[in-house]
Amino acid sequence: MSDTRPIGVFDSGLGGLTVVRELFRLMPGERIVYLGDTARCPYGGRSEETIRSFGMQDAQLLMEMDIKLLVVACNTVSSVALDYIERHIKETPVVGVVLPGARAAALRTAERKVGVIGTTATIRAGAYTRAIQTLDPAIKVYGKACPLFVPLVEEGLLDHEITRLTVQHYLRELLDLGADCIILGCTHYPLLIQTIQEFVGTRTHCVDSALWTAKEVQNILMALGDLSPEKAGGLSASRFMVTDYAPRFKELAAAFLGAALPSIDLVELEKLTKVCATVAAV
Amino acid sequence: MSDTRPIGVFDSGLGGLTVVRELFRLMPGERIVYLGDTARCPYGGRSEETIRSFGMQDAQLLMEMDIKLLVVACNTVSSVALDYIERHIKETPVVGVVLPGARAAALRTAERKVGVIGTTATIRAGAYTRAIQTLDPAIKVYGKACPLFVPLVEEGLLDHEITRLTVQHYLRELLDLGADCIILGCTHYPLLIQTIQEFVGTRTHCVDSALWTAKEVQNILMALGDLSPEKAGGLSASRFMVTDYAPRFKELAAAFLGAALPSIDLVELEKLTKVCATVAAV
Repeated sequence: MSDTRPIGVFDSGLGGLTVVRELFRLMPGERIVYLGDTARCPYGGRSEETIRSFGMQDAQLLMEMDIKLLVVACNTVSSVALDYIERHIKETPVVGVVLPGARAAALRTAERKVGVIGTTATIRAGAYTRAIQTLDPAIKVYGKACPLFVPLVEEGLLDHEITRLTVQHYLRELLDLGADCIILGCTHYPLLIQTIQEFVGTRTHCVDSALWTAKEVQNILMALGDLSPEKAGGLSASRFMVTDYAPRFKELAAAFLGAALPSIDLVELEKLTKVCATVAAV
Repeated sequence: MSDTRPIGVFDSGLGGLTVVRELFRLMPGERIVYLGDTARCPYGGRSEETIRSFGMQDAQLLMEMDIKLLVVACNTVSSVALDYIERHIKETPVVGVVLPGARAAALRTAERKVGVIGTTATIRAGAYTRAIQTLDPAIKVYGKACPLFVPLVEEGLLDHEITRLTVQHYLRELLDLGADCIILGCTHYPLLIQTIQEFVGTRTHCVDSALWTAKEVQNILMALGDLSPEKAGGLSASRFMVTDYAPRFKELAAAFLGAALPSIDLVELEKLTKVCATVAAV
Protein backbone atom coordinates (compact mmCIF):
# COMPACT_ATOMS: atom_id res chain seq x y z
CA MET A 1 0.00 0.00 0.00
CA SER A 2 1.28 3.47 -0.73
CA ASP A 3 0.05 7.03 -1.25
CA THR A 4 1.83 9.11 -3.88
CA ARG A 5 0.08 12.36 -2.97
CA PRO A 6 2.47 15.08 -1.75
CA ILE A 7 3.28 16.12 1.81
CA GLY A 8 2.33 19.77 2.42
CA VAL A 9 4.83 21.91 4.35
CA PHE A 10 4.50 25.57 5.26
CA ASP A 11 6.51 28.15 7.13
CA SER A 12 6.34 31.93 7.55
CA GLY A 13 9.33 32.14 5.20
CA LEU A 14 12.14 29.99 3.94
CA GLY A 15 13.37 28.49 7.24
CA GLY A 16 10.96 25.56 6.86
CA LEU A 17 13.21 24.30 4.09
CA THR A 18 15.42 22.90 6.88
CA VAL A 19 12.51 20.52 7.58
CA VAL A 20 12.13 19.72 3.86
CA ARG A 21 15.81 18.84 3.75
CA GLU A 22 15.37 16.28 6.54
CA LEU A 23 12.18 14.89 4.96
CA PHE A 24 14.04 14.18 1.72
CA ARG A 25 16.99 12.73 3.61
CA LEU A 26 14.71 10.17 5.32
CA MET A 27 12.15 9.70 2.55
CA PRO A 28 13.63 10.36 -0.87
CA GLY A 29 10.50 8.98 -2.54
CA GLU A 30 8.20 11.70 -1.22
CA ARG A 31 6.94 14.73 -3.10
CA ILE A 32 6.62 18.02 -1.20
CA VAL A 33 4.38 21.01 -1.75
CA TYR A 34 5.98 23.91 0.13
CA LEU A 35 4.54 27.32 0.95
CA GLY A 36 6.67 30.12 2.41
CA ASP A 37 4.74 33.29 3.31
CA THR A 38 7.69 35.53 2.43
CA ALA A 39 5.43 38.59 1.93
CA ARG A 40 4.47 38.60 5.63
CA CYS A 41 7.40 36.95 7.39
CA PRO A 42 8.59 36.99 10.09
CA TYR A 43 5.60 35.88 12.18
CA GLY A 44 7.58 35.62 15.44
CA GLY A 45 6.92 39.12 16.76
CA ARG A 46 3.20 39.31 15.91
CA SER A 47 0.11 38.81 18.07
CA GLU A 48 -1.49 35.39 18.60
CA GLU A 49 -4.59 36.43 16.62
CA THR A 50 -2.55 37.40 13.58
CA ILE A 51 -0.35 34.29 13.78
CA ARG A 52 -3.46 32.11 13.97
CA SER A 53 -5.04 33.87 11.00
CA PHE A 54 -1.90 33.76 8.83
CA GLY A 55 -1.18 30.12 9.77
CA MET A 56 -4.72 29.03 8.97
CA GLN A 57 -4.52 30.73 5.57
CA ASP A 58 -1.25 28.92 4.79
CA ALA A 59 -2.68 25.57 5.89
CA GLN A 60 -5.87 26.03 3.90
CA LEU A 61 -3.99 26.84 0.68
CA LEU A 62 -2.03 23.58 0.97
CA MET A 63 -5.20 21.62 1.82
CA GLU A 64 -6.59 22.64 -1.56
CA MET A 65 -3.70 20.78 -3.20
CA ASP A 66 -4.71 17.27 -2.17
CA ILE A 67 -1.91 16.57 0.30
CA LYS A 68 -1.70 13.41 2.41
CA LEU A 69 -0.15 15.05 5.49
CA LEU A 70 0.43 18.63 6.63
CA VAL A 71 3.67 19.74 8.30
CA VAL A 72 3.54 23.04 10.16
CA ALA A 73 7.26 23.73 9.82
CA CYS A 74 6.95 27.12 11.50
CA ASN A 75 7.76 27.00 15.22
CA THR A 76 5.75 30.16 15.84
CA VAL A 77 2.58 28.75 14.26
CA SER A 78 3.19 25.31 15.85
CA SER A 79 3.47 26.97 19.26
CA VAL A 80 0.52 29.32 18.95
CA ALA A 81 -2.01 27.76 16.59
CA LEU A 82 -1.50 24.01 16.08
CA ASP A 83 -4.68 23.05 17.97
CA TYR A 84 -6.63 25.61 16.00
CA ILE A 85 -5.39 24.29 12.65
CA GLU A 86 -5.99 20.67 13.67
CA ARG A 87 -9.58 21.49 14.63
CA HIS A 88 -10.23 22.90 11.15
CA ILE A 89 -8.39 20.19 9.23
CA LYS A 90 -9.84 16.93 10.44
CA GLU A 91 -9.37 14.78 7.35
CA THR A 92 -5.54 15.01 7.19
CA PRO A 93 -2.81 14.29 9.77
CA VAL A 94 -1.10 17.48 10.98
CA VAL A 95 2.46 17.44 12.37
CA GLY A 96 3.97 20.45 14.13
CA VAL A 97 7.61 20.95 15.06
CA VAL A 98 7.11 21.41 18.81
CA LEU A 99 6.19 17.91 20.01
CA PRO A 100 8.97 16.06 18.13
CA GLY A 101 11.59 18.49 19.48
CA ALA A 102 10.14 18.30 22.99
CA ARG A 103 10.28 14.49 22.96
CA ALA A 104 13.90 14.44 21.82
CA ALA A 105 14.88 16.91 24.55
CA ALA A 106 13.03 15.01 27.30
CA LEU A 107 14.97 11.87 26.35
CA ARG A 108 18.31 13.63 26.26
CA THR A 109 18.47 15.83 29.36
CA ALA A 110 20.40 14.11 32.15
CA GLU A 111 20.07 17.09 34.52
CA ARG A 112 16.37 17.44 33.70
CA LYS A 113 16.90 21.04 32.73
CA VAL A 114 16.02 22.04 29.18
CA GLY A 115 16.47 25.43 27.53
CA VAL A 116 14.26 26.48 24.63
CA ILE A 117 15.22 29.28 22.25
CA GLY A 118 12.85 30.72 19.67
CA THR A 119 10.95 33.79 18.52
CA THR A 120 9.13 36.04 20.98
CA ALA A 121 5.76 34.47 20.12
CA THR A 122 7.08 30.90 20.42
CA ILE A 123 8.54 31.49 23.87
CA ARG A 124 5.54 33.49 25.10
CA ALA A 125 3.15 30.72 24.01
CA GLY A 126 5.01 28.21 26.22
CA ALA A 127 4.09 25.23 24.00
CA TYR A 128 7.52 23.57 24.40
CA THR A 129 7.25 23.84 28.18
CA ARG A 130 3.80 22.23 28.22
CA ALA A 131 4.86 19.46 25.82
CA ILE A 132 8.00 18.58 27.83
CA GLN A 133 6.28 18.71 31.21
CA THR A 134 3.48 16.48 29.93
CA LEU A 135 6.16 13.90 29.12
CA ASP A 136 8.01 14.41 32.43
CA PRO A 137 6.72 16.95 34.97
CA ALA A 138 10.05 16.89 36.81
CA ILE A 139 11.91 18.51 33.92
CA LYS A 140 12.54 22.23 34.34
CA VAL A 141 12.14 24.23 31.12
CA TYR A 142 13.69 27.66 30.57
CA GLY A 143 12.54 29.67 27.56
CA LYS A 144 14.54 32.49 25.97
CA ALA A 145 13.34 34.60 23.05
CA CYS A 146 16.16 35.41 20.60
CA PRO A 147 14.69 37.90 18.09
CA LEU A 148 18.06 38.82 16.58
CA PHE A 149 18.93 35.29 15.39
CA VAL A 150 16.57 35.34 12.38
CA PRO A 151 17.90 38.62 10.93
CA LEU A 152 21.50 37.49 11.62
CA VAL A 153 20.90 34.29 9.63
CA GLU A 154 19.19 36.23 6.84
CA GLU A 155 22.18 38.60 6.72
CA GLY A 156 24.41 35.54 6.26
CA LEU A 157 26.44 36.39 9.40
CA LEU A 158 26.61 32.75 10.51
CA ASP A 159 30.15 32.90 11.83
CA HIS A 160 30.81 36.52 12.77
CA GLU A 161 31.83 38.37 15.93
CA ILE A 162 28.41 40.09 16.06
CA THR A 163 26.73 36.67 16.02
CA ARG A 164 29.04 35.22 18.69
CA LEU A 165 28.30 38.20 20.93
CA THR A 166 24.56 37.82 20.32
CA VAL A 167 24.73 34.09 21.11
CA GLN A 168 26.42 34.92 24.42
CA HIS A 169 23.89 37.67 25.12
CA TYR A 170 20.96 35.28 24.78
CA LEU A 171 22.35 31.93 25.94
CA ARG A 172 24.50 32.72 28.96
CA GLU A 173 21.41 32.80 31.16
CA LEU A 174 20.36 29.28 30.07
CA LEU A 175 23.82 27.90 30.89
CA ASP A 176 23.80 29.66 34.27
CA LEU A 177 20.49 27.98 35.00
CA GLY A 178 22.11 24.60 34.33
CA ALA A 179 20.36 23.57 31.10
CA ASP A 180 22.20 20.61 29.53
CA CYS A 181 19.96 20.44 26.49
CA ILE A 182 18.85 23.32 24.27
CA ILE A 183 16.03 23.08 21.75
CA LEU A 184 16.57 25.17 18.62
CA GLY A 185 12.93 26.23 18.47
CA CYS A 186 13.05 28.09 15.16
CA THR A 187 13.77 26.73 11.70
CA HIS A 188 16.40 29.42 11.13
CA TYR A 189 18.56 28.36 14.05
CA PRO A 190 20.10 25.15 12.65
CA LEU A 191 22.23 27.45 10.49
CA LEU A 192 23.71 28.89 13.70
CA ILE A 193 24.31 25.51 15.32
CA GLN A 194 28.12 25.65 15.08
CA THR A 195 28.34 29.09 16.68
CA ILE A 196 25.84 28.07 19.36
CA GLN A 197 27.59 24.74 20.05
CA GLU A 198 30.93 26.55 20.33
CA PHE A 199 29.52 28.77 23.07
CA VAL A 200 27.53 26.19 25.04
CA GLY A 201 30.26 23.53 24.84
CA THR A 202 30.12 19.84 24.02
CA ARG A 203 28.42 18.86 27.29
CA THR A 204 25.28 20.73 26.25
CA HIS A 205 23.19 19.00 23.64
CA CYS A 206 21.45 21.02 20.89
CA VAL A 207 18.17 19.55 19.61
CA ASP A 208 17.27 20.42 16.03
CA SER A 209 13.48 20.16 15.77
CA ALA A 210 13.63 19.79 11.97
CA LEU A 211 15.29 16.38 12.20
CA TRP A 212 12.84 15.00 14.77
CA THR A 213 9.85 16.38 12.91
CA ALA A 214 10.92 14.51 9.77
CA LYS A 215 11.22 11.29 11.82
CA GLU A 216 7.71 11.84 13.20
CA VAL A 217 6.34 12.26 9.66
CA GLN A 218 8.10 9.05 8.59
CA ASN A 219 6.61 7.15 11.55
CA ILE A 220 3.09 8.33 10.80
CA LEU A 221 3.27 7.57 7.07
CA MET A 222 4.78 4.17 7.82
CA ALA A 223 2.02 3.36 10.32
CA LEU A 224 -0.64 4.38 7.80
CA GLY A 225 1.09 2.51 4.96
CA ASP A 226 1.21 5.79 3.08
CA LEU A 227 4.92 6.10 2.21
CA SER A 228 5.63 6.74 -1.47
CA PRO A 229 7.66 4.26 -3.54
CA GLU A 230 11.32 5.34 -3.70
CA LYS A 231 11.40 6.63 -7.28
CA ALA A 232 8.22 8.73 -7.29
CA GLY A 233 9.52 11.83 -5.56
CA GLY A 234 12.43 14.06 -4.72
CA LEU A 235 13.26 17.70 -5.28
CA SER A 236 12.42 17.83 -9.00
CA ALA A 237 8.96 16.28 -8.45
CA SER A 238 8.15 18.81 -5.70
CA ARG A 239 6.62 22.26 -5.83
CA PHE A 240 7.77 25.39 -4.01
CA MET A 241 5.58 28.47 -3.57
CA VAL A 242 6.21 31.85 -1.96
CA THR A 243 4.09 34.98 -1.52
CA ASP A 244 6.98 37.33 -2.37
CA TYR A 245 10.20 36.99 -4.34
CA ALA A 246 12.37 38.76 -1.83
CA PRO A 247 15.94 39.71 -2.71
CA ARG A 248 18.60 37.08 -1.86
CA PHE A 249 15.76 34.58 -2.04
CA LYS A 250 17.58 31.82 -3.93
CA GLU A 251 20.77 32.14 -1.94
CA LEU A 252 18.88 31.88 1.33
CA ALA A 253 16.70 28.99 0.15
CA ALA A 254 19.79 27.04 -0.89
CA ALA A 255 21.36 27.63 2.54
CA PHE A 256 18.30 26.21 4.32
CA LEU A 257 17.67 23.36 1.88
CA GLY A 258 21.29 22.40 1.29
CA ALA A 259 20.55 22.38 -2.47
CA ALA A 260 19.29 24.78 -5.11
CA LEU A 261 15.51 25.03 -5.53
CA PRO A 262 14.37 23.74 -8.93
CA SER A 263 11.71 26.40 -9.55
CA ILE A 264 9.49 28.67 -7.48
CA ASP A 265 5.91 29.81 -7.98
CA LEU A 266 4.60 33.13 -6.75
CA VAL A 267 1.23 32.90 -4.98
CA GLU A 268 -0.68 36.17 -4.68
CA LEU A 269 -1.51 37.19 -1.13
CA GLU A 270 -5.10 37.83 -2.25
CA LYS A 271 -5.40 34.11 -2.90
CA LEU A 272 -4.42 33.40 0.71
CA THR A 273 -6.82 35.93 2.20
CA LYS A 274 -9.67 34.66 -0.01
CA VAL A 275 -9.08 31.19 1.41
CA CYS A 276 -9.27 32.76 4.86
CA ALA A 277 -12.66 34.34 4.24
CA THR A 278 -14.00 30.87 3.46
CA VAL A 279 -12.54 29.50 6.68
CA ALA A 280 -13.97 32.32 8.76
CA ALA A 281 -17.42 31.58 7.35
CA VAL A 282 -17.26 27.90 8.40
CA MET B 1 -7.56 80.62 5.82
CA SER B 2 -7.01 77.27 7.47
CA ASP B 3 -7.85 73.61 6.98
CA THR B 4 -8.59 71.60 10.11
CA ARG B 5 -8.67 68.22 8.33
CA PRO B 6 -5.97 65.82 9.58
CA ILE B 7 -2.59 65.00 8.03
CA GLY B 8 -2.38 61.31 7.08
CA VAL B 9 0.88 59.52 7.93
CA PHE B 10 1.73 55.89 7.28
CA ASP B 11 4.68 53.58 7.81
CA SER B 12 5.26 49.84 7.59
CA GLY B 13 5.28 49.81 11.39
CA LEU B 14 5.86 52.18 14.28
CA GLY B 15 9.03 53.90 13.10
CA GLY B 16 6.98 56.57 11.32
CA LEU B 17 6.08 57.93 14.74
CA THR B 18 9.50 59.65 14.65
CA VAL B 19 8.02 61.78 11.84
CA VAL B 20 4.81 62.37 13.82
CA ARG B 21 6.92 63.59 16.73
CA GLU B 22 8.58 66.22 14.52
CA LEU B 23 5.25 67.21 12.96
CA PHE B 24 3.80 67.95 16.41
CA ARG B 25 6.96 69.78 17.45
CA LEU B 26 6.65 72.16 14.48
CA MET B 27 2.85 72.28 14.19
CA PRO B 28 1.17 71.60 17.53
CA GLY B 29 -2.22 72.59 16.06
CA GLU B 30 -2.35 69.73 13.56
CA ARG B 31 -4.30 66.51 13.90
CA ILE B 32 -2.70 63.30 12.62
CA VAL B 33 -4.24 60.09 11.35
CA TYR B 34 -1.50 57.45 11.56
CA LEU B 35 -1.44 53.95 10.08
CA GLY B 36 1.29 51.42 10.96
CA ASP B 37 1.09 48.13 9.04
CA THR B 38 2.45 46.16 11.98
CA ALA B 39 0.95 42.88 10.70
CA ARG B 40 3.23 42.92 7.65
CA CYS B 41 6.26 44.94 8.75
CA PRO B 42 9.12 45.13 8.00
CA TYR B 43 8.78 46.05 4.30
CA GLY B 44 12.52 46.63 3.79
CA GLY B 45 13.48 43.14 2.63
CA ARG B 46 10.54 42.58 0.27
CA SER B 47 10.27 42.88 -3.51
CA GLU B 48 9.36 46.15 -5.25
CA GLU B 49 6.00 44.72 -6.39
CA THR B 50 4.99 43.82 -2.84
CA ILE B 51 6.20 47.14 -1.41
CA ARG B 52 4.22 49.02 -4.07
CA SER B 53 1.11 46.99 -3.35
CA PHE B 54 1.34 47.31 0.46
CA GLY B 55 2.17 51.04 0.25
CA MET B 56 -0.75 51.73 -2.07
CA GLN B 57 -3.12 49.91 0.30
CA ASP B 58 -1.87 51.98 3.24
CA ALA B 59 -2.22 55.23 1.29
CA GLN B 60 -5.69 54.36 0.06
CA LEU B 61 -6.97 53.61 3.56
CA LEU B 62 -5.84 57.05 4.75
CA MET B 63 -7.32 58.72 1.68
CA GLU B 64 -10.72 57.43 2.73
CA MET B 65 -10.40 59.47 5.93
CA ASP B 66 -10.54 62.92 4.32
CA ILE B 67 -6.95 64.00 4.95
CA LYS B 68 -5.48 67.26 3.67
CA LEU B 69 -1.96 65.91 3.02
CA LEU B 70 -0.38 62.45 2.91
CA VAL B 71 3.04 61.75 4.46
CA VAL B 72 4.72 58.52 3.35
CA ALA B 73 6.84 58.19 6.50
CA CYS B 74 8.26 54.86 5.37
CA ASN B 75 11.65 55.23 3.68
CA THR B 76 11.19 51.92 1.87
CA VAL B 77 7.85 52.95 0.31
CA SER B 78 9.15 56.49 -0.35
CA SER B 79 12.15 55.02 -2.19
CA VAL B 80 10.31 52.39 -4.20
CA ALA B 81 6.76 53.60 -4.77
CA LEU B 82 6.30 57.34 -4.21
CA ASP B 83 5.72 58.08 -7.92
CA TYR B 84 3.22 55.26 -8.10
CA ILE B 85 1.27 56.54 -5.10
CA GLU B 86 1.34 60.14 -6.39
CA ARG B 87 -0.06 59.01 -9.75
CA HIS B 88 -3.04 57.40 -8.00
CA ILE B 89 -3.65 60.20 -5.50
CA LYS B 90 -3.93 63.34 -7.54
CA GLU B 91 -6.22 65.39 -5.35
CA THR B 92 -3.97 65.51 -2.26
CA PRO B 93 -0.35 66.61 -1.77
CA VAL B 94 1.96 63.65 -1.05
CA VAL B 95 5.25 64.08 0.87
CA GLY B 96 7.83 61.31 1.10
CA VAL B 97 10.87 61.21 3.37
CA VAL B 98 13.52 60.88 0.66
CA LEU B 99 13.55 64.32 -0.97
CA PRO B 100 13.65 66.35 2.29
CA GLY B 101 16.54 64.22 3.60
CA ALA B 102 18.36 64.43 0.28
CA ARG B 103 18.07 68.23 0.22
CA ALA B 104 19.42 68.56 3.75
CA ALA B 105 22.39 66.32 2.93
CA ALA B 106 23.20 68.14 -0.31
CA LEU B 107 23.38 71.42 1.63
CA ARG B 108 25.55 69.97 4.38
CA THR B 109 28.25 67.94 2.68
CA ALA B 110 31.47 69.95 2.36
CA GLU B 111 33.39 67.07 0.78
CA ARG B 112 30.49 66.34 -1.60
CA LYS B 113 30.40 62.76 -0.40
CA VAL B 114 27.18 61.53 1.18
CA GLY B 115 26.49 58.14 2.75
CA VAL B 116 22.96 56.75 2.86
CA ILE B 117 21.95 53.96 5.22
CA GLY B 118 18.62 52.17 5.05
CA THR B 119 16.84 48.91 4.42
CA THR B 120 17.85 46.61 1.57
CA ALA B 121 14.95 47.81 -0.59
CA THR B 122 15.65 51.50 0.09
CA ILE B 123 19.31 51.20 -0.89
CA ARG B 124 18.59 48.99 -3.91
CA ALA B 125 16.02 51.46 -5.22
CA GLY B 126 18.65 54.24 -5.26
CA ALA B 127 16.07 57.01 -4.74
CA TYR B 128 18.33 59.01 -2.40
CA THR B 129 21.14 58.86 -4.95
CA ARG B 130 18.90 60.13 -7.75
CA ALA B 131 17.42 62.89 -5.56
CA ILE B 132 20.85 64.15 -4.40
CA GLN B 133 22.43 64.01 -7.85
CA THR B 134 19.49 65.90 -9.36
CA LEU B 135 20.29 68.69 -6.88
CA ASP B 136 24.05 68.50 -7.47
CA PRO B 137 25.47 65.97 -9.95
CA ALA B 138 28.95 66.41 -8.49
CA ILE B 139 28.01 64.85 -5.14
CA LYS B 140 29.06 61.22 -4.75
CA VAL B 141 26.50 59.07 -2.95
CA TYR B 142 27.34 55.78 -1.23
CA GLY B 143 24.48 53.54 -0.15
CA LYS B 144 24.75 50.87 2.53
CA ALA B 145 21.93 48.53 3.52
CA CYS B 146 21.84 47.89 7.29
CA PRO B 147 19.19 45.15 7.82
CA LEU B 148 20.19 44.50 11.44
CA PHE B 149 19.47 48.03 12.68
CA VAL B 150 15.67 47.63 12.72
CA PRO B 151 15.68 44.43 14.82
CA LEU B 152 18.32 45.92 17.14
CA VAL B 153 16.10 48.95 17.78
CA GLU B 154 13.05 46.73 18.25
CA GLU B 155 15.04 44.66 20.77
CA GLY B 156 15.78 47.88 22.64
CA LEU B 157 19.56 47.39 22.34
CA LEU B 158 20.18 51.06 21.59
CA ASP B 159 23.41 51.31 23.57
CA HIS B 160 24.89 47.82 23.65
CA GLU B 161 28.16 46.22 22.56
CA ILE B 162 26.32 44.20 19.88
CA THR B 163 24.93 47.43 18.44
CA ARG B 164 28.29 49.21 18.53
CA LEU B 165 29.87 46.27 16.68
CA THR B 166 27.04 46.27 14.12
CA VAL B 167 27.40 50.03 13.58
CA GLN B 168 31.12 49.52 12.88
CA HIS B 169 30.36 46.57 10.60
CA TYR B 170 28.06 48.64 8.41
CA LEU B 171 29.50 52.16 8.61
CA ARG B 172 33.27 51.70 8.45
CA GLU B 173 33.06 51.42 4.65
CA LEU B 174 31.25 54.78 4.35
CA LEU B 175 33.88 56.52 6.47
CA ASP B 176 36.66 54.91 4.44
CA LEU B 177 35.03 56.31 1.30
CA GLY B 178 35.19 59.78 2.85
CA ALA B 179 31.50 60.50 3.45
CA ASP B 180 31.13 63.56 5.72
CA CYS B 181 27.36 63.39 5.87
CA ILE B 182 25.22 60.31 6.51
CA ILE B 183 21.48 60.18 5.87
CA LEU B 184 19.58 58.02 8.35
CA GLY B 185 17.31 56.62 5.66
CA CYS B 186 14.97 54.62 7.90
CA THR B 187 12.59 55.89 10.55
CA HIS B 188 14.03 53.45 13.10
CA TYR B 189 17.55 54.83 12.89
CA PRO B 190 17.11 58.11 14.83
CA LEU B 191 16.96 55.92 17.96
CA LEU B 192 20.53 54.77 17.16
CA ILE B 193 21.85 58.26 16.46
CA GLN B 194 24.02 58.47 19.59
CA THR B 195 25.73 55.15 18.93
CA ILE B 196 26.17 56.05 15.26
CA GLN B 197 27.48 59.54 16.04
CA GLU B 198 29.95 58.09 18.55
CA PHE B 199 31.41 55.86 15.85
CA VAL B 200 31.47 58.32 12.94
CA GLY B 201 32.76 61.22 15.08
CA THR B 202 31.67 64.83 15.31
CA ARG B 203 33.07 65.79 11.91
CA THR B 204 30.50 63.59 10.19
CA HIS B 205 26.99 64.99 10.10
CA CYS B 206 23.96 62.69 10.54
CA VAL B 207 20.82 63.78 8.70
CA ASP B 208 17.53 62.68 10.28
CA SER B 209 14.97 62.59 7.46
CA ALA B 210 12.07 62.81 9.93
CA LEU B 211 12.95 66.36 10.94
CA TRP B 212 13.32 67.61 7.36
CA THR B 213 10.14 65.88 6.25
CA ALA B 214 8.17 67.70 8.95
CA LYS B 215 9.66 71.01 7.76
CA GLU B 216 8.63 70.20 4.19
CA VAL B 217 5.07 69.48 5.35
CA GLN B 218 5.01 72.78 7.22
CA ASN B 219 6.22 74.68 4.12
CA ILE B 220 3.55 73.13 1.91
CA LEU B 221 0.69 73.75 4.33
CA MET B 222 1.89 77.30 4.88
CA ALA B 223 2.06 77.96 1.13
CA LEU B 224 -1.45 76.56 0.68
CA GLY B 225 -2.78 78.46 3.70
CA ASP B 226 -3.86 75.13 5.13
CA LEU B 227 -2.23 75.15 8.59
CA SER B 228 -4.60 74.42 11.47
CA PRO B 229 -5.19 76.98 14.22
CA GLU B 230 -2.96 76.27 17.23
CA LYS B 231 -5.58 74.86 19.58
CA ALA B 232 -7.37 72.47 17.20
CA GLY B 233 -4.94 69.55 17.30
CA GLY B 234 -2.25 67.65 19.14
CA LEU B 235 -1.83 64.08 20.32
CA SER B 236 -5.22 63.70 21.98
CA ALA B 237 -7.08 64.94 18.88
CA SER B 238 -5.22 62.47 16.65
CA ARG B 239 -5.91 58.88 15.68
CA PHE B 240 -3.50 55.96 15.61
CA MET B 241 -4.20 52.71 13.76
CA VAL B 242 -2.24 49.47 13.42
CA THR B 243 -2.91 46.18 11.62
CA ASP B 244 -1.57 44.08 14.53
CA TYR B 245 -1.15 44.63 18.26
CA ALA B 246 2.32 43.18 18.45
CA PRO B 247 3.94 42.53 21.83
CA ARG B 248 5.96 45.43 23.25
CA PHE B 249 3.84 47.65 21.04
CA LYS B 250 3.25 50.48 23.48
CA GLU B 251 6.80 50.56 24.77
CA LEU B 252 8.15 50.78 21.23
CA ALA B 253 5.61 53.40 20.14
CA ALA B 254 6.53 55.59 23.11
CA ALA B 255 10.23 55.31 22.22
CA PHE B 256 9.58 56.52 18.67
CA LEU B 257 7.03 59.18 19.55
CA GLY B 258 8.70 60.46 22.71
CA ALA B 259 5.30 60.24 24.46
CA ALA B 260 2.71 57.59 25.24
CA LEU B 261 0.06 56.97 22.56
CA PRO B 262 -3.41 58.00 23.77
CA SER B 263 -5.30 55.06 22.19
CA ILE B 264 -4.84 52.71 19.27
CA ASP B 265 -7.34 51.20 16.83
CA LEU B 266 -6.85 47.83 15.21
CA VAL B 267 -7.58 47.82 11.46
CA GLU B 268 -8.21 44.41 9.95
CA LEU B 269 -5.86 43.46 7.14
CA GLU B 270 -8.88 42.44 5.06
CA LYS B 271 -9.94 46.08 5.06
CA LEU B 272 -6.59 47.05 3.54
CA THR B 273 -6.68 44.37 0.86
CA LYS B 274 -10.27 45.27 -0.04
CA VAL B 275 -9.13 48.83 -0.62
CA CYS B 276 -6.39 47.39 -2.83
CA ALA B 277 -8.85 45.49 -5.04
CA THR B 278 -10.62 48.78 -5.76
CA VAL B 279 -7.33 50.43 -6.69
CA ALA B 280 -6.32 47.56 -8.97
CA ALA B 281 -9.62 47.90 -10.81
CA VAL B 282 -9.02 51.62 -11.52
